[in-house]
Amino acid sequence: MTRDLRVLFDPRSVAILGASSDPAKWGHWLARGAVKGEARRAVFLVNRNGGVILGRRAYPSLADLPEAPELVVVTVPAAGFEGAVDAALDAGARALVAISAGLGESGAEGRRRERAVVERVRAAGAVLVGPNCLGVFDAGAYLELSSDEVPPGSIGLVSQSGNLGLELGLLARDAGLGFSRFVSLGNQADLEAAELVEALAAHEPTRLIALYLEDFRDGRAFARAAGAAVAAGKPVVLLAGGGTEASARAARSHTGALVSDLAAVDAACAAAGIERVATPKALVDVAQALLAAPPAAGRRLAAVADGGGSNVIAADLAVAAGLELPTLESATQAALRDVLPPTAATANPVDLAGGGEQDVLNFARTVDVLLRADEVDAVFLTGYFGGYAAYSDELRVREVEAAVAMARAAAESRRPLIVQTMYWQAPAPVALREHGVAVYRELEGALRGLGALVSRGADAASGVPVLPEPVAPPLATAEYWEARELLEAAGIRFAGARRALDVAEALAAAEEVGYPVVLKALGRLHKSEGGGVAIGLAGPDALRESFAAMEATLAPPEYSVERTAPVAEGVELIVGARRDPRFGPVALVGTGGIFAEVLADVRVALAPLDVDGAVELIGSLRSAPLLAGARGRPALDVQAAARVAAALSRVAAQRPEIAEIEINPLLVTAEGALGLDARVVLGEKGDADAG
Amino acid sequence: MTRDLRVLFDPRSVAILGASSDPAKWGHWLARGAVKGEARRAVFLVNRNGGVILGRRAYPSLADLPEAPELVVVTVPAAGFEGAVDAALDAGARALVAISAGLGESGAEGRRRERAVVERVRAAGAVLVGPNCLGVFDAGAYLELSSDEVPPGSIGLVSQSGNLGLELGLLARDAGLGFSRFVSLGNQADLEAAELVEALAAHEPTRLIALYLEDFRDGRAFARAAGAAVAAGKPVVLLAGGGTEASARAARSHTGALVSDLAAVDAACAAAGIERVATPKALVDVAQALLAAPPAAGRRLAAVADGGGSNVIAADLAVAAGLELPTLESATQAALRDVLPPTAATANPVDLAGGGEQDVLNFARTVDVLLRADEVDAVFLTGYFGGYAAYSDELRVREVEAAVAMARAAAESRRPLIVQTMYWQAPAPVALREHGVAVYRELEGALRGLGALVSRGADAASGVPVLPEPVAPPLATAEYWEARELLEAAGIRFAGARRALDVAEALAAAEEVGYPVVLKALGRLHKSEGGGVAIGLAGPDALRESFAAMEATLAPPEYSVERTAPVAEGVELIVGARRDPRFGPVALVGTGGIFAEVLADVRVALAPLDVDGAVELIGSLRSAPLLAGARGRPALDVQAAARVAAALSRVAAQRPEIAEIEINPLLVTAEGALGLDARVVLGEKGDADAG
Repeated sequence: MTRDLRVLFDPRSVAILGASSDPAKWGHWLARGAVKGEARRAVFLVNRNGGVILGRRAYPSLADLPEAPELVVVTVPAAGFEGAVDAALDAGARALVAISAGLGESGAEGRRRERAVVERVRAAGAVLVGPNCLGVFDAGAYLELSSDEVPPGSIGLVSQSGNLGLELGLLARDAGLGFSRFVSLGNQADLEAAELVEALAAHEPTRLIALYLEDFRDGRAFARAAGAAVAAGKPVVLLAGGGTEASARAARSHTGALVSDLAAVDAACAAAGIERVATPKALVDVAQALLAAPPAAGRRLAAVADGGGSNVIAADLAVAAGLELPTLESATQAALRDVLPPTAATANPVDLAGGGEQDVLNFARTVDVLLRADEVDAVFLTGYFGGYAAYSDELRVREVEAAVAMARAAAESRRPLIVQTMYWQAPAPVALREHGVAVYRELEGALRGLGALVSRGADAASGVPVLPEPVAPPLATAEYWEARELLEAAGIRFAGARRALDVAEALAAAEEVGYPVVLKALGRLHKSEGGGVAIGLAGPDALRESFAAMEATLAPPEYSVERTAPVAEGVELIVGARRDPRFGPVALVGTGGIFAEVLADVRVALAPLDVDGAVELIGSLRSAPLLAGARGRPALDVQAAARVAAALSRVAAQRPEIAEIEINPLLVTAEGALGLDARVVLGEKGDADAG
Repeated sequence: MTRDLRVLFDPRSVAILGASSDPAKWGHWLARGAVKGEARRAVFLVNRNGGVILGRRAYPSLADLPEAPELVVVTVPAAGFEGAVDAALDAGARALVAISAGLGESGAEGRRRERAVVERVRAAGAVLVGPNCLGVFDAGAYLELSSDEVPPGSIGLVSQSGNLGLELGLLARDAGLGFSRFVSLGNQADLEAAELVEALAAHEPTRLIALYLEDFRDGRAFARAAGAAVAAGKPVVLLAGGGTEASARAARSHTGALVSDLAAVDAACAAAGIERVATPKALVDVAQALLAAPPAAGRRLAAVADGGGSNVIAADLAVAAGLELPTLESATQAALRDVLPPTAATANPVDLAGGGEQDVLNFARTVDVLLRADEVDAVFLTGYFGGYAAYSDELRVREVEAAVAMARAAAESRRPLIVQTMYWQAPAPVALREHGVAVYRELEGALRGLGALVSRGADAASGVPVLPEPVAPPLATAEYWEARELLEAAGIRFAGARRALDVAEALAAAEEVGYPVVLKALGRLHKSEGGGVAIGLAGPDALRESFAAMEATLAPPEYSVERTAPVAEGVELIVGARRDPRFGPVALVGTGGIFAEVLADVRVALAPLDVDGAVELIGSLRSAPLLAGARGRPALDVQAAARVAAALSRVAAQRPEIAEIEINPLLVTAEGALGLDARVVLGEKGDADAG
């Protein structure tokens, strides 16, 4: 659904329902904000008692307005919500901003009421933001329907938390940034994140899209909208919550959110090229760099300071963040020595060693040399720059001159220059920012910015895959044998296995598959935890013994007797998929074996995967060097493993009834990939929201 | 060496050698700082041209002073350094602060000159700070011998970088903190970190010791001094650099530092109970919490906000930082419901859901309930608090009232209360700080603070072990068989092995140890990389084949034929020790096997370890659950592995000639621990600095 949101962001007239003279009330703050746009649009304050508010006539009801209000802000308590919305629609409203809380986030009854209201809103051809939201802001349209001041700028912010929106505003202001638009999403009863991202992608003054989301609603539509914005040159930065039990609990009570696993969110981010961050500060740090500098072509950083301690700490942090500080080429070092005092360190990090004190323009000369060096992808100035202004007026002027020269050199080089200085508010750093260079107060922020530039330079978004049509009929049960057959039908090989109900059948099965065998007690989800798997049974005696032990402790309904696989010759992976309520099927690959839980080495992608995507995913595992044949071992058949992951992900994508599907372990050897176990868990049939 | 440093921190008289009227010179800034202490001590400005500086008479030389200067600040260029020091000693100086750069950090000749000067200083019974330092500050003694303003407070700071000292000062000021003393260490030619830590531990106004160090000099003396300070109730927070090749390069050129591996630094921190941080901001974040709040008795956190988004993000971060957010007991939730509106979330995180807007004292009531709850170790208030002041004068007053009530509740509970708010500079947060509660602007900082409180509550320092007397004579060589014998003599068991020079000897050896055997080509450090180890050789044919292949590709000087160990029945560890130039022998244990490099799961401790210490170290590995018998496997003999680690660490500690010693892998099974390989690398004989 793509609707014209002009009525929301630049309405011809606005009415504040519940406007108030009481400076401690929402109706007051919103009225105060709304009247700031009076030069551009008619603003009507509505209060059932009439009278005068903010020096303006207050109308007793929407029906009394002299013209139809294009946008109506609803601040009434939940009990009066339906009545207020109906009155607004009756008065001709095309857009509603619903501040009212206590609806969808309060439980099933509230959600039912929300849905009923939204039906009426849509039937009237109108749009609704909220309820349970904080307002809407558009800098270019002078629309300030929010409780607090919002700094203007070029970030389009969509936030499911009003307070986090305010916090982001305060942090952005310190970084010299602000918002082109800000929408507080609330419960997303009508307008969802995806539609707003689309609107921001098309909004010229918006240069970067920032999001705080608890519930992604139609997650694939969201990912597609974000991916389109990124592809069109607008970075998307996402602050996402709900990755832990405690935060999911908080999100449910906050906006009634149906929270996605962060792994699913990460899969969507990879597909769309979204930068995910974990804190408001990180969002602003990343936005600052992405707005100021071009992407970095690689991870090779040159660091500069006048004073070695800053360099020492910066170098450690940069390496920890995945950057490299290569020793500079001798030609580069020679060029630096032409500029700097003989005590200067020129290898990288570069220490001016008092060279800045001697002549502050040496900063610009050094940065210029580094920006031109072929072995450098990005330059990082850290430490003291900006502090020379305190010495004398002359030095202050000269330091600003150095700042302007650095900014010019960065712009000409088309390479990122990032600056961190303890004197971030001094004239020269301020000049740097004014000339388009990102300046940070703390190393942490600067390195986040650098990391985002490298990641934007390196990671092509993998794209949001299209979901295949569901296969009919859906599975009704999915026990072990059914799971194996389902996956075998998709072309996946498993270790030979025979069903057995008693010890005689088990012994006969073992003769068929050949000793040594594996005995599995079926009907348990985590077989290896409860003694339900016995491996390396060399002959009938060992098999009988294990069988008896399982009978005694587990008494399973049936057994599987399986051929022993050459585990020592390969590496075990976990290959699977899970259905997220918002993003649909998500494929995962991970390192298996006894170290699986210790390593927690899992990568995810939106399903279905193709084989190339699966190769890339497997290649990004920390254990990938082992698959490639590290430590004198042969290279393993990664292609075969990737074919299994792709085939499994397609099965998951075609069968919405599957909640979880997994081959664990998948044995990858030099000769191929062999499933050693299979598991399918069925869930609710399909998920309406994941499209 | 414990010397009385009163002459340094509170001298009866001070002379600034090289005082200047030029506001762009060190001699000017230092003179300006020094005269601030004129009410307490005589201050002499010395400039060879005499005249008037800062309105005071300048003396042409130290010899012209009316009395002996107890402390002399030397700012002359390196060429005049010796002359200046001699003049100061001749004039009767007892303490010297040497700003001059270009000595020890510039190379061997500079270090020689430094050593010669220090001999004369010590012979005169004086002390010297620097050279290549930024100055000395003592708030209580009104001693301000530094180029920039230093905020006064209760942190004793020792920094090997002047600029980082300034940066820490600016960050500390924002956190409402400052310094009791600040010593810029420079090259530590005379005064080293250990001696200054001792002085700060004895300095009453210093409540926390903060350090930035590149070179730990006598590392064990440093660790002992820090450990004594921590034991006496003064937390020690260390910003350490040099963990990467690039940063070590930077540190060497900066202060000529002999940089330690960060693993060795971590071993010293664990021994002494030092909190290590990676950035200046982190140092101040941690200091703020440690100065304001008592240690946390455990990791159970209750989070509170008025607005759910802040809680969602805070909960995710807290869990990522190793904290727990337990669901609150029903009695606690009932007590919260008595206070809060019905829409409030009381499970944890606690969302006031507008309850703060209704009555801002609800923050205090909520925090009070949580501080009293038995299931909570620390309380974290996050988000909007402080913002209500903007609504009205009445609310501002009431919000400050809430702040004072919270601070009182925290003090009474003896549990930590940590606050993060976007309005950190508003009246109520300022009141919180004034009443001893740590207030942060960003979640990152608050969680660092909480983490430090948990860590201080949990980790008893393990103590700095005493080094045994070296064993004579030192080893001259340490090939494979010598390494095994050395370790076997210490009581460590190895897989049976026989030496072989040709294929006939190999076949005979295999008969002795029994097939299947392992064949190792000796004389190579990383045997498994180059095809130098063949395992599972089932009989003479397989052995002949592997032997021929190794002869062809490696042509090793000799072979070892070894008994095959039951690898599938156990877990492989790496057990070793390395000699750090500053901290001496450092023991390490790690997860071994093919996942060793992928896992990078290594723990370190100062050697020698005792068995209990080794059990604890092994128990802190990420793979520890596997040793304890996870996933249906038997519990392994961790005590045996610990005995091996302890014995090996004692060998390393007794033999300073050993640079590295390692058993990799050590196979740990349910029956014991068996070395499957051994390696010793000899280094320079002993290290003078590691005491």
